[in-house]
Amino acid sequence: MPEFFTLVAPDEARARILEQAAPLGQTEIIPTHKAAGRTLCADVPSPQVLPEFRRSAMDGYAVQAQDTFGAGDALPAYLKLAGEVPMGCAAAVDVGPGAAVLVHTGGMLPDSADAVVMIENTQLVGQDEIEVCKPVAPGENVIQVGEDIALGDPILTSGHILRAQDVGGLLAVGIVQVEVMRRPRVAIFATGDEVIEPYLPTRPGQVRDINSYIVAALAERAGAEAVRGSILPDDFDTLLVSARQALDNGADMLVLSAGSSVSVRDMTADVFNRLGEPGVLVHGIATRPGKPTILGMAQGVPLMGLPGNPVSAFVQFAMIGLPVIYRLLGTAPPKEPSMRARLAANIASTAGREDYVPCTLAEQDGELWAEPIFFKSNLIFTLVKADGLLVIPLDKTGLEAGEWVRVRRV
Amino acid sequence: MPEFFTLVAPDEARARILEQAAPLGQTEIIPTHKAAGRTLCADVPSPQVLPEFRRSAMDGYAVQAQDTFGAGDALPAYLKLAGEVPMGCAAAVDVGPGAAVLVHTGGMLPDSADAVVMIENTQLVGQDEIEVCKPVAPGENVIQVGEDIALGDPILTSGHILRAQDVGGLLAVGIVQVEVMRRPRVAIFATGDEVIEPYLPTRPGQVRDINSYIVAALAERAGAEAVRGSILPDDFDTLLVSARQALDNGADMLVLSAGSSVSVRDMTADVFNRLGEPGVLVHGIATRPGKPTILGMAQGVPLMGLPGNPVSAFVQFAMIGLPVIYRLLGTAPPKEPSMRARLAANIASTAGREDYVPCTLAEQDGELWAEPIFFKSNLIFTLVKADGLLVIPLDKTGLEAGEWVRVRRV
Repeated sequence: MPEFFTLVAPDEARARILEQAAPLGQTEIIPTHKAAGRTLCADVPSPQVLPEFRRSAMDGYAVQAQDTFGAGDALPAYLKLAGEVPMGCAAAVDVGPGAAVLVHTGGMLPDSADAVVMIENTQLVGQDEIEVCKPVAPGENVIQVGEDIALGDPILTSGHILRAQDVGGLLAVGIVQVEVMRRPRVAIFATGDEVIEPYLPTRPGQVRDINSYIVAALAERAGAEAVRGSILPDDFDTLLVSARQALDNGADMLVLSAGSSVSVRDMTADVFNRLGEPGVLVHGIATRPGKPTILGMAQGVPLMGLPGNPVSAFVQFAMIGLPVIYRLLGTAPPKEPSMRARLAANIASTAGREDYVPCTLAEQDGELWAEPIFFKSNLIFTLVKADGLLVIPLDKTGLEAGEWVRVRRV
Repeated sequence: MPEFFTLVAPDEARARILEQAAPLGQTEIIPTHKAAGRTLCADVPSPQVLPEFRRSAMDGYAVQAQDTFGAGDALPAYLKLAGEVPMGCAAAVDVGPGAAVLVHTGGMLPDSADAVVMIENTQLVGQDEIEVCKPVAPGENVIQVGEDIALGDPILTSGHILRAQDVGGLLAVGIVQVEVMRRPRVAIFATGDEVIEPYLPTRPGQVRDINSYIVAALAERAGAEAVRGSILPDDFDTLLVSARQALDNGADMLVLSAGSSVSVRDMTADVFNRLGEPGVLVHGIATRPGKPTILGMAQGVPLMGLPGNPVSAFVQFAMIGLPVIYRLLGTAPPKEPSMRARLAANIASTAGREDYVPCTLAEQDGELWAEPIFFKSNLIFTLVKADGLLVIPLDKTGLEAGEWVRVRRV
């Protein structure tokens, strides 16, 4: 019996599963300095002001600004050198009218000082006097208390994926532990009577499993923990039992890489429907490669049935699987403004279908050019050679050489 | 004594250290499925052809194409159904003239078959005969032996940083272990009498170390192993002994985050010169933020002295430190075509200086806009708020709102 496809547009397919997938809501507390790449699960207000004391922005002399007004090369202001504030110490000496105190970049300002004269604009006269040959305004070369961040100001918001500088910002205000989302566990099964583990020699008719490893690598880069199950035969009961066990064992997402023949794809859909409500959400997506992709939900767990073709599996997991992982993490995929490139050759497509075409990228005369790699979607080395996927929108029947296209790096 | 700066343009500064830094040349063998993000240290030729047998690209019937020539809806070709090739098995049944064998997508073709008729273009007649209502050409719907990759073809070249699809490509041809560069060890010291560990409460005049953590996070993302040393006081002998120990203990790169006052910066340069030949290579870069950056080499190890300002330290380590790490890995920084955005506000600069201005990014009407965050380079929260750094080239005295600018994501 031929399969009945009700193809769904890619955006709609993604929306259907994202709508039902809920953030895990389970968190863990980890050291801030190990938290780069992890997702915050609560807003973080600053527990203190920063800086906590007025700091000098320059090497120079802390002064009362009004003592320098009118100073110039011809008529310098003379100030009495009252001492020095060593780095790391409170200012033990104050600056009275007509006085100056040596300060270093980042050092603390004495209480009565309101500006810093750069050392380049001064001259030492004897042991304890300086000439100032350029006036400073109040506040000049001073970093005020709280200028970096104020008490209670939002440092970062829930759902933010921490970068190197965020780790720095948190540590700067003494936040040495953070609560982050625990990593979603993605259970991945390769299935197919023809599929064997990569370390085994192949016999005629056999191919090595690569899809589960490709999906695992993509999932882990997005912050998930990938759990590869054993390779399953094309047998309904075995698939169902293995899928149920994965959910019982705490999988937060289930991926079956399920071969490409119609009967096997139907089996995946049946398994999803048997796992629980609502079961299959999308059976077939108006896209290429990856049309036979199946999406579902059961027991609150997002389910994804990927075609056996490695390029299809890669593209669909990148386009739909990764956004699901970010949803589980309570966040959106990292802001990645679309990259644009000029197309180096004509490409045909079909209206009503969104195509992702592997391409190489090269910069030429300051413009980025995308050269499509014409391919069969079964060929993994098409992707190995690719720098990106260029997108042919749903409403186009093709693109012409020279047109600007959106490209996603892979 | 005022410091003597001979400012070097950023490209020249980077070139000077990259010229002297040599790839580590030390490798390790790891499982391929754990190698995503690691750098290959040798070209990898394919040890086999892929596919190893002729595969069907469709669900359908393997046939001799000439038996279908002239077939149509009105006058179908009738072929005898000779059997099926189950997935994962060698084709045990052959296709004689006038015969057809059921095959599944990805399955093996019988020896004498040279094409596959899609199942949609056939009809079963009784138990053992099919009607074919559309002809196929020889080779149609067949993936030939070696079409994905040929024996000995280069899979990937030395210096390639492995992505998810590369892991798949290697496993597809049975390469389950790969030789990759070992991670460079980057020793990082924060120095400064005012600097304390982030978990400590601050006293007046003290600030928490964040630069060593920021550098560590950036270095690790680039594939290095970061080794943070203890926080060092502004004392020449302590700095020199600690730096020597780091080199003796096998550091492949040494980073001192060294405060911002002139005396402290001079101390870093003196330490570098005492560590060995050639010592300091660059003392001051024509850039902002980060002018006081110091680059050097000693005992074959690249040395980097970063300003104490966190924004300067971040920018300079990103712009120069990361390329050094990739050089140690025997590769170039990942191909990252420059992102372009339109500038949302005027910015002033100085000719002869390359500026990196933290900015936020937003897409508007399909165009990417960069909004500069005007900042003091001492303020870490400037970077926390930033999506990218926009570049003001060396020869510009500023940029005008609406201009296209290069932006680097941070």
